[in-house]
Amino acid sequence: MTTATKEIDLSQYPYINKGLEGIVAFSTNKSNVDGQIGELIYGGYNINTLAEKSTFEEVCFLLWEDRLPTQTELDELKAALQANRELPELVLNYISNANKKAEPMSVLRTAVSMLADFDENFDFKSHDENYRRSIEITAKIPTIIAAFDRVRNGKEIVAPLHTGSTSFNFLYMLNGIEPGEKAEKMLDLCLILHAEHGMNASTFTARAVCSTEADIYSAVTGALGSLKGPLHGGANTAVMNLLLQLQKQPNPDPVQFVKDKLARKEKISGFGHRVYKTLDPRASHLQKLSKALAEETGHIELYNWSVAMMETMKAEKDINANVDFFSATVYYSMGIMPDLYTAIFALSRISGWAAHYMEQMENNRLIRPKSLFTLEKNMDWTPIENR
Amino acid sequence: MTTATKEIDLSQYPYINKGLEGIVAFSTNKSNVDGQIGELIYGGYNINTLAEKSTFEEVCFLLWEDRLPTQTELDELKAALQANRELPELVLNYISNANKKAEPMSVLRTAVSMLADFDENFDFKSHDENYRRSIEITAKIPTIIAAFDRVRNGKEIVAPLHTGSTSFNFLYMLNGIEPGEKAEKMLDLCLILHAEHGMNASTFTARAVCSTEADIYSAVTGALGSLKGPLHGGANTAVMNLLLQLQKQPNPDPVQFVKDKLARKEKISGFGHRVYKTLDPRASHLQKLSKALAEETGHIELYNWSVAMMETMKAEKDINANVDFFSATVYYSMGIMPDLYTAIFALSRISGWAAHYMEQMENNRLIRPKSLFTLEKNMDWTPIENR
Repeated sequence: MTTATKEIDLSQYPYINKGLEGIVAFSTNKSNVDGQIGELIYGGYNINTLAEKSTFEEVCFLLWEDRLPTQTELDELKAALQANRELPELVLNYISNANKKAEPMSVLRTAVSMLADFDENFDFKSHDENYRRSIEITAKIPTIIAAFDRVRNGKEIVAPLHTGSTSFNFLYMLNGIEPGEKAEKMLDLCLILHAEHGMNASTFTARAVCSTEADIYSAVTGALGSLKGPLHGGANTAVMNLLLQLQKQPNPDPVQFVKDKLARKEKISGFGHRVYKTLDPRASHLQKLSKALAEETGHIELYNWSVAMMETMKAEKDINANVDFFSATVYYSMGIMPDLYTAIFALSRISGWAAHYMEQMENNRLIRPKSLFTLEKNMDWTPIENR
Repeated sequence: MTTATKEIDLSQYPYINKGLEGIVAFSTNKSNVDGQIGELIYGGYNINTLAEKSTFEEVCFLLWEDRLPTQTELDELKAALQANRELPELVLNYISNANKKAEPMSVLRTAVSMLADFDENFDFKSHDENYRRSIEITAKIPTIIAAFDRVRNGKEIVAPLHTGSTSFNFLYMLNGIEPGEKAEKMLDLCLILHAEHGMNASTFTARAVCSTEADIYSAVTGALGSLKGPLHGGANTAVMNLLLQLQKQPNPDPVQFVKDKLARKEKISGFGHRVYKTLDPRASHLQKLSKALAEETGHIELYNWSVAMMETMKAEKDINANVDFFSATVYYSMGIMPDLYTAIFALSRISGWAAHYMEQMENNRLIRPKSLFTLEKNMDWTPIENR
């Protein structure tokens, strides 16, 4: 049998930038992550300021326009989002007939991809058209997620409201009842915290797809695929499954649980980050939220376990909790099923993806790195009967 | 109104690797492109050898296994591809009801994404499962493309055969009649030439998506989005539209046509390549094929214009034709509509995407580069009524 021989010792090639770690691929107006001091900035503003003073819709405007909106501009954007929430019939048909066991992120990826079929303007470079498309996709993602969750649970799909915030309307469509002010505000804060985060894998994927001058539906579809992975957005679902695994044990002991996993070298989702060497500021906000929710609902157990796990990871491995760790318990306290968490991440991050897509399209260069070939070249051909 | 001030002079930051040009992102067994000498290698073998001696199915095996198959192994792979050509009913329903004006690449992207819904094995890291999925997606892509082309032309969908090569079966499903040996062989050669090409944008996208440990459907969906762009796979459609634009002129003059476009600084698709500084070996094969087809069908005009355009570009700008330039006239001579060419590119390139996905998953590192923030940080918050 003809097998090509490996002739290259990879250790001789330290210039392979595996994972593109440390490579500065773009300049951007969208956000800055300073991992040394634990600082996150969106379009000039600190995440702590935005968490306190802003709303998800205002953050969308900031990310898309690189400045804060006036009241009129914000009202216009809100109205545009509200007006675009309905799904085309073909997309609703797909969701209604989808395999109920399919992953929510898969259905979301397919449904967003399908939205392209209804856009008969093929000018994919026009900024105005891409702005319109950004509003449309951002408005429709919550409807897709809620609709599939209703369908797979055997419930009627709830049509979107044409009033209210993204977070109010999403909870309404998901549960079939209007949420209270507190729940709306909490989800809105989660959406603010997840909106944008530098050159993370899904945003980078969106820019890579855009770099061929492909349309924004293609870019967002690619980003959704990237976010779905357990090393990226899929981690929040994995965290919740971990906590539920602990809950099932006869005498749950979060400290021993973490130590056992570490001893078996198992992955513990929700800890560590390529960029943050100190506490992720988003994790601090989410921890506060998780605590408040736990006290309010009286289900303090999961919160306490989370804190114990966090302290054990810090003591044993000096690794901090990341954004996924406390978002899991926050969503769980709100009654949302674990396998929807990544989709809710997408519901927020679409704002960042769209922002980066428009920025890349304005000043584009095809993304095409190189690779190092590790086999022999120009091997002799062996006829199939002699192999 | 509060606007963040740009404080950074980008020219001071030469370390931004725009387009990741020159960055070695991976090591790979899959292919090598030597742009200086115009050499392309798949898994150890020169593209010229493969073009002469191989078939598309054998190239799939080579790319997925890093060696040539025995006769038994090749027969098994062919049988597996033949057995997996049928589409699930939900996918057929989507295609049958899709907007007839939708782009074939959009419909292909959505349909491939939808295939994930039927895969209830959620072990996305298993090599064996990913091999099975690679066969399935490779087998189904031709069926999706042909089915949508029939539907949008008001024709009945032709069910796939469970015999014959990928190229035979695709032409059969597309046209509703079995192709001759010559047409089958020509398309097969096109598929061999398009199967794999180093760290091109769509393959890179597939690896970026894979790097989050997302599933192969997500990765291929992302790659399809990337390929769709006119700076990547979309170029072959653009080339044909250019030639058809020339044909519509009262007295078509390809030399003047090119010169006029250059004078107006318009993009001329099908020329130039990030990597090749000399002739792309694939372009040479396709040029020969284009000439043979032109002589056989008696439609020599388009071929002669192509050569004149190529010579003008070489003389005026010293830029060579690339793989897209002659693939356009080859497909046109075979009676295939221009807006299907990018989809046919995908029908072949799926072999390379799947190969890179499996390679990345075996030795993964999350792809997460950095970006340089270009606005002021920690700006003061202005209440909305004061903006």
